[in-house]
Amino acid sequence: MQETSAPFRPGTYPENTIGRLMEDPIAVFPESLTVAEATERVRELAAKRLFTYCYIVNPQGVLKGVVTMRDLLLHEKGTRLDSFMLKDPFVLRPEYPLMEAMRQTVNRHYPSYPVCDDQGLLLGIARGSRIFEQQAIEISAQPGAMVGVESEERVNTPFLRSLKFRHPWLQFNLLTAFIAAAVVGLFEDTIDQIVVLAVFLPVLAGQSGNTGCQALAVSLRGITLGELKAGRESQFLVKEAALGLANGALVGITAGLGMFFYATWQQTAVSPYQLGTIVFLAMMGSCFLSGVSGVMVPITLKKFGADPATASSIFLTTATDVASMGFFLGIARLWLM
Amino acid sequence: MQETSAPFRPGTYPENTIGRLMEDPIAVFPESLTVAEATERVRELAAKRLFTYCYIVNPQGVLKGVVTMRDLLLHEKGTRLDSFMLKDPFVLRPEYPLMEAMRQTVNRHYPSYPVCDDQGLLLGIARGSRIFEQQAIEISAQPGAMVGVESEERVNTPFLRSLKFRHPWLQFNLLTAFIAAAVVGLFEDTIDQIVVLAVFLPVLAGQSGNTGCQALAVSLRGITLGELKAGRESQFLVKEAALGLANGALVGITAGLGMFFYATWQQTAVSPYQLGTIVFLAMMGSCFLSGVSGVMVPITLKKFGADPATASSIFLTTATDVASMGFFLGIARLWLM
Repeated sequence: MQETSAPFRPGTYPENTIGRLMEDPIAVFPESLTVAEATERVRELAAKRLFTYCYIVNPQGVLKGVVTMRDLLLHEKGTRLDSFMLKDPFVLRPEYPLMEAMRQTVNRHYPSYPVCDDQGLLLGIARGSRIFEQQAIEISAQPGAMVGVESEERVNTPFLRSLKFRHPWLQFNLLTAFIAAAVVGLFEDTIDQIVVLAVFLPVLAGQSGNTGCQALAVSLRGITLGELKAGRESQFLVKEAALGLANGALVGITAGLGMFFYATWQQTAVSPYQLGTIVFLAMMGSCFLSGVSGVMVPITLKKFGADPATASSIFLTTATDVASMGFFLGIARLWLM
Repeated sequence: MQETSAPFRPGTYPENTIGRLMEDPIAVFPESLTVAEATERVRELAAKRLFTYCYIVNPQGVLKGVVTMRDLLLHEKGTRLDSFMLKDPFVLRPEYPLMEAMRQTVNRHYPSYPVCDDQGLLLGIARGSRIFEQQAIEISAQPGAMVGVESEERVNTPFLRSLKFRHPWLQFNLLTAFIAAAVVGLFEDTIDQIVVLAVFLPVLAGQSGNTGCQALAVSLRGITLGELKAGRESQFLVKEAALGLANGALVGITAGLGMFFYATWQQTAVSPYQLGTIVFLAMMGSCFLSGVSGVMVPITLKKFGADPATASSIFLTTATDVASMGFFLGIARLWLM
C-alpha cells in the first residue's frame, strides 16, 4: 500500500532524536489519486490501523503535500488529491533532538508531523503527543542530571544499577570537595586562632551554593525552553550577577548580624563588628560569583557539546564552595591577623 | 451550531488544571443526525476552525459518543451518528491537575480529549499536545522549585521580580544554615583542639548533600511520572537508604584515606588512623540519612498538600548538614577527647 521507497528504520537513529520515535506513515498516496480512490484505500487501511493524515508523495517518495480526512470528506469524488492538498507542509528531520523538535512544534499543535530527510523523502511520522511525552520524561531527568544521576534511572531501577549510575559522580564530587577542603586547609592557622570562623564556614558554603543553584536552575530552564539564545546570554549573565550581588548583600546583612550576636555571646577575642563585616563582605562577594557561575556552568557544558545539566550542580558548588570559604577566610586573615 | 448548553469558561478553573487549557469543542452534534447532515455541518464549520473529532451529545448536553472524520467518510450518507459512534469515550475532568492528566493520557496518544463534568456534561476539549507542552513547561520549573525559584520565573523575568521571587527562600535557607552552624558551634571546643576537623567539615556537608540530592531527584521524578505510588514508597525508601549506606561507605573510604594522608602530612597530635576512621563512619552514617531524607522530604511535602519539589533541596541540605557535621564532630569528641 505504501508508495514510498524510503526505508523506515527508527532504530538506526540516536536516542532522544525524532528518528527514534518515528512511526510508519501508513496512508501514503500518489499525487494523481482521486478522492474516490483515496477514500477506498483509507477504508482498507482504517480497518487495520489508526491514522490522522494522508501523505502525498511523488514517484521518488518525496513528500509533496498532506490531505486530511476532512478534505476527503468535503471534496468531490473525482477530484485529484494534488489539486487541493496542503503543499509544502511543515516537516521534521529525523536527526532533530527532541528538544529542538519541541521548540519547533510548540506553537503548532498538530496531532502528527511528517518526518523527511534533506532530500524531502518521507521517512515516517512523529506524533505530537509522543514528542511532548518523551520530552516530559527527558526534562524530568534534569534535577537528577544536575547531581550526577543518569537520565535512564527511574524509581524502579535495580539497586546495583543505581549504585553503578550514581557512584562515579559521588567520587567525582568528593574530589571537588577536596579542592574546597584544600582552600580551608590553607587557612588552618587562621581558624586555629579564631575558631568561631569554623562555625560560619557551612553557612557561607550552603548559602552561596543555594544562590548559585537558583541561577543555574533558571539558566537550564531557559536553555530547555529555547529562551536563552546565543545573543541574549551576556544580558542574562549581567542580570544574574546583579541578582547574586543584591541577594548576597541582603542575606549578608542577616548573616553578618548572626555572626555579630554569636561572637558577642561567645566573647571572642576579635571584635564582633569586624567578624560581622567579614561575613557580610564574603557573602556578597561569593553570591555575586554564584550568580555568574550559575549562568556560566551550563553554557560552558553546552559549548563543549555536553548536556548543560550534567553534573552542573557539582561543578557549581565546587566554584561556590571555593569562592565563599576562600573569600571568608582570606578577608579574615588579611584584616584580623 | 453548538447543541450543548454547558458553559465554556476555561478562565474559571485554577492554574495548571485541564479546565484552564480547555478549548471550545466546535463540532457538537445530536445523536439523531445522519452522516449526510453531519458532513454538511462539518463543511460549514471547517471553513472557520480546525477540529479533529465530532462530539455527540444528548439534548441535555451530556456526551454520548465520539465520531471521527474517517467514520463520516466511510459510512453511508443516511446512517445515524449514534449507530456507529464510539460510545463511552475516555474523558478528562476540568479539575484534573496537569500531572494527573498527563499520567492518564500518556499511553493514549489521542490528538484531543473531551472534558466533561461529573454529570457527563461536555464542557470543552483538551488537546493532547497542549497537555504535554504545559507539562513540559511545568516540569522544567522543578530544578528551580527545589532551591526556591517560583515556577513562573523565566529567563526574561525582570530583575526586581526575580529578586522578590528568590530572596525570601534565601533568607529561609540562611535560617536553616544557622541550625547547621549551631551544631558546629556545639563542638567549638573540639575544633579548637583538633583544627584539622574544620578542614573536613565542608567535605562531609557537600558530599552528604549531593548524595541526598540524587535520592531527592529520583524521588521527585518518580512522583512526576506517577511511578512512586503510595504502596511502593516503603520499598523505595529501603532501596534509597541502602544506596546511601553503600555510596557512603565507598565514598567514606576515599574520604577517610584523604583525611589519613592529610593528617599524616600535617603531623597532627591525634592519630591519623583514628581521624580517617571517624571520617569514614561519619560519611557512611550521614549518606545513609541522606538517602532516607531524599525520599522523605518530597513525600512529606506532598502529604502536607505542597508541591513536592518546593524548597525540597533547602529542607534536604538542612538535614544532611546537621547530620553529617553532627556525626563527624560528635564521634570525634566521644573518641578523641
